[in-house]
Amino acid sequence: MEAITYELKHICKQTGARRGVIHTPHGDIETPVFMPVGTQATVKSMTPEELKEEVKAHIILSNTYHLYLRPGNKLVKEAGGLHKFMNWDRAILTDSGGFQVFSLGNLRTITEEGVEFKSYLDGSKHFLSPEKVMEIENDLGSDIMMAFDECVQYPAEYEYVKQSMERTTRWAERCKMAHKNTDKQGLFGIVQGGTYKDLREKSAKDLVAMDFPGYAVGGLSVGEPKELMCDVLQFTTKILPEDKPRYLMGVGTPDYLIEAVLRGIDMCDCVLPTRIARNGTALTSHGKVVVRNATYERDWRKLDEECDCYTCKNYTRAYIRHLVKTNEILGIRLLSIHNLRFLTRLMERVRTEIERDNLLNFKNEFYKKYGYES
Amino acid sequence: MEAITYELKHICKQTGARRGVIHTPHGDIETPVFMPVGTQATVKSMTPEELKEEVKAHIILSNTYHLYLRPGNKLVKEAGGLHKFMNWDRAILTDSGGFQVFSLGNLRTITEEGVEFKSYLDGSKHFLSPEKVMEIENDLGSDIMMAFDECVQYPAEYEYVKQSMERTTRWAERCKMAHKNTDKQGLFGIVQGGTYKDLREKSAKDLVAMDFPGYAVGGLSVGEPKELMCDVLQFTTKILPEDKPRYLMGVGTPDYLIEAVLRGIDMCDCVLPTRIARNGTALTSHGKVVVRNATYERDWRKLDEECDCYTCKNYTRAYIRHLVKTNEILGIRLLSIHNLRFLTRLMERVRTEIERDNLLNFKNEFYKKYGYES
Repeated sequence: MEAITYELKHICKQTGARRGVIHTPHGDIETPVFMPVGTQATVKSMTPEELKEEVKAHIILSNTYHLYLRPGNKLVKEAGGLHKFMNWDRAILTDSGGFQVFSLGNLRTITEEGVEFKSYLDGSKHFLSPEKVMEIENDLGSDIMMAFDECVQYPAEYEYVKQSMERTTRWAERCKMAHKNTDKQGLFGIVQGGTYKDLREKSAKDLVAMDFPGYAVGGLSVGEPKELMCDVLQFTTKILPEDKPRYLMGVGTPDYLIEAVLRGIDMCDCVLPTRIARNGTALTSHGKVVVRNATYERDWRKLDEECDCYTCKNYTRAYIRHLVKTNEILGIRLLSIHNLRFLTRLMERVRTEIERDNLLNFKNEFYKKYGYES
Repeated sequence: MEAITYELKHICKQTGARRGVIHTPHGDIETPVFMPVGTQATVKSMTPEELKEEVKAHIILSNTYHLYLRPGNKLVKEAGGLHKFMNWDRAILTDSGGFQVFSLGNLRTITEEGVEFKSYLDGSKHFLSPEKVMEIENDLGSDIMMAFDECVQYPAEYEYVKQSMERTTRWAERCKMAHKNTDKQGLFGIVQGGTYKDLREKSAKDLVAMDFPGYAVGGLSVGEPKELMCDVLQFTTKILPEDKPRYLMGVGTPDYLIEAVLRGIDMCDCVLPTRIARNGTALTSHGKVVVRNATYERDWRKLDEECDCYTCKNYTRAYIRHLVKTNEILGIRLLSIHNLRFLTRLMERVRTEIERDNLLNFKNEFYKKYGYES
């Protein structure tokens, strides 16, 4: 029995978007879903209870690379695993560290065996291989583990992307072999290939042949134009099996979430909602509100009149602005709760509109109100 | 009818410590009480719900000086007052700004009329007089307002302390005249006089003659030895009327709280619990725990085995240390909840021990365990 299974419930007749459920050892996840990011075993500024009760999150993401360096996967294992360590009893997805390690540029060296890199904390040398990453993710005990991959930035030469993609596929095979805990943790393969469709096709087909319980689309939203991303994504998801969940990594803004779902994506994650919260910015149904700005000094309205979150039930923009201007932590907290809830509420609505075969109409309405061009 | 009244319920036969209740327009406060400090219309890192449910606070303190500068008392008034602005429906005490303004040293000039000072934010010039401070505190709408006083540091010359104390008394008279909202806000006088008993006596008697609904003891715990503080405090509280609450400003550590209560004090406040939380330090029944230290890296115990707070119910020292080391806001939050609860729980126990006429025994037991010398 696989740890992770996917149940397709409905396909939107208007768009082809998927409505489903992912079953995990830590509960069911209604999809499409937005996953809050808890990089260092905490979703920044939030308690688990707030994630459950206010954000209504059923799965969060955590970062293998960061947890490997601090506090260390062995310490987390000793704590009883990541769920217990951080007091979160719902599902967790861990990335593979690939994105972070490859972002290090000159500070890392890639070989067939793996990647050597220097810690950003103390300059110490480390080596991550597919086997090592599986050991770390097994120690963390996440419900969904990602295979170790190379995320290539845009633009990149065809030859480099090809070699990298083929290595990522070989690494995926090694990950599958090394993964020790298949009854409790599901390992997802990651499709690479940049913006080259033949490479995406090869990557997807080779990974599908290995039969993972889920697939991620990596290496998108890394600098390429939105149209190109949408085109490559559409092409890629068509190759993936219908009975497995599909995850677009590192996305993102409300429009990217909707565009991804329209192209058959079930799962997304992004640090955006908590990052812009720390900047004094709110997501609202009428677009971004930079509540830090002087224009909100005496604005006695809630952040978003349509929102049901703790922040919108209890606080004015004027008060939140005061907290932001005086660098008070509560300001970050209130904005984080609201921004995360904005995206989970958006996805709740998206799920309803898929069921109603009405996602395209909803998209047009949402874009108009938000201020996006359709 | 006074806005603030005090009901004396019991005097500890062993020590003379007072057990009572302060009635305010925003609820009753069991005394002796520790008041968390919410300098800028927020108790740092906390929501009002956490203060109620986890800390079990019934009154908080906020700072007139800071709120006057940001966001401005007129804005708070427009919001419907401080309670509504910050979403706190229990009692609030505001200080007078005196402590902050006089701490400015060279940046302020004192005359009989009031104090001119420069803003630490933008260098702009401001003038605070007793009348101005009453206007600000009336705008804020706190339940308990403090009169505008000069807090003299230790050590100070007799002549200076005498002149300053006499001016503070004249200012208290002017505050009483200027206070506009006596049915909803109670104004407390502040006894000054440094460490000179004759000056303390004169200050206390003159203020008592003006008949305030409560009295603060100011200008203590400003650098003088603990023994001297205790001695002057004991002397001063004996002159104050039994039927009015007594507030020792800016105290403090667990031992200072107990010593104050032993000398007839009913109310205390201090930024210590939230400040040391931001430093990675916890108050526990066995003394301070600097959870940031390496020794707690794999410590799977709660912060304090006797504590009933959210933090102690759900998290290990090892996890809190990880959050502190990675500069995660949740670490500050968990330590702030715990430290504030530690002091409110200590005061709950102190109230019980007063009722049992057993406060001195409790003090000795607590000091031994905590590591203080009795």
